[in-house]
Amino acid sequence: MSLDPIEHLILELGRLPGVGVRSAARLAFYIIAESRKYPVEQSLAYDLAKALTEVADKVVLCKTCHNLATSIQCNICSDARRDEHLLCIVEGVEDLRAIEACGSYRGFYHVLHGSLAPLDGIGPKDLFLDELYERVQREKFQEVIIATNADVEGDATALYIGQLLRSTKVRLSRLAAGIPLGGELEFIDQATLGRALAERREF
Amino acid sequence: MSLDPIEHLILELGRLPGVGVRSAARLAFYIIAESRKYPVEQSLAYDLAKALTEVADKVVLCKTCHNLATSIQCNICSDARRDEHLLCIVEGVEDLRAIEACGSYRGFYHVLHGSLAPLDGIGPKDLFLDELYERVQREKFQEVIIATNADVEGDATALYIGQLLRSTKVRLSRLAAGIPLGGELEFIDQATLGRALAERREF
Repeated sequence: MSLDPIEHLILELGRLPGVGVRSAARLAFYIIAESRKYPVEQSLAYDLAKALTEVADKVVLCKTCHNLATSIQCNICSDARRDEHLLCIVEGVEDLRAIEACGSYRGFYHVLHGSLAPLDGIGPKDLFLDELYERVQREKFQEVIIATNADVEGDATALYIGQLLRSTKVRLSRLAAGIPLGGELEFIDQATLGRALAERREF
Repeated sequence: MSLDPIEHLILELGRLPGVGVRSAARLAFYIIAESRKYPVEQSLAYDLAKALTEVADKVVLCKTCHNLATSIQCNICSDARRDEHLLCIVEGVEDLRAIEACGSYRGFYHVLHGSLAPLDGIGPKDLFLDELYERVQREKFQEVIIATNADVEGDATALYIGQLLRSTKVRLSRLAAGIPLGGELEFIDQATLGRALAERREF
């Protein structure tokens, strides 16, 4: 395994999503060229390596919501100013971040780290759903917003969660579906437009 | 500077070319998700960090041709079976690799690490051109192929090199310009087509 360091880096960069052999080589050469400009300890390669090692060493899942965290509880779960009556279920950390970024939600989260996909062998046991059930029973949420993606897997997951939580009597909701703001009807896909029509609201 | 490790990784990934904030976040979450699947020492994050550190620590420029190398001379310069009468000048290591990959060149290289770009402050001193002159005088090349890019900077660099090496009496050549193999005339740009016409060859 004494691979040439450059080939090795190209190989490792090629493991990233959306990075083919050519982009991996381009990235590697860029990193090498940038890194030659400074002493090795301040090089881009070192900076990146440090950030990667730090993430691998320090980032864990929050015990409560399974968000990424650097201690047993994530920033959100340990924030006492949040609304303890609201829980939002998301498929991934990137969804949580998107909702946080929109700035209009101040409750807690539950991150599934995936969606039901029987064909890929991902069932309820893989999605922290037992923990979700226990959490909803234990804590005093008044509403649970199921914010899974608006695709087939997301819908199936939402349905499953709906049945799972029915017995807890908590209020369940789902994100509104419809035309995105700024969207022009002409360019909206048929399914979305159909849904927006079916779920039209009083004006 | 005690930045959150995840934000830190996103920031560092965002320094790569063509990686915006969103792609950086997507890459970071992918790396974290992949890394959770294995013990930390076998994680993608660690593998990548190792490859990066190794490159920063071990990769240097070949003393002779300025190709990337892991010792004082690169693999190509230390290959005795190469044709010592041929030298090929390229702008970058990626160009060298492209020529190596085509398999029809067996001479040596000289890597400039850039092209003349007065507006960006890149002059002859930044491109190992003194070394090129000395090398051509010292060694027994019969032909020097100037394989800079077929753009304005590449052409300017080629012209400069042509003047620089004129006194050495070595034979100078330039890569043929014309329509790429498989190219359809209809879709070839005007400049290329004009050049292919002007440099048409006997059939």
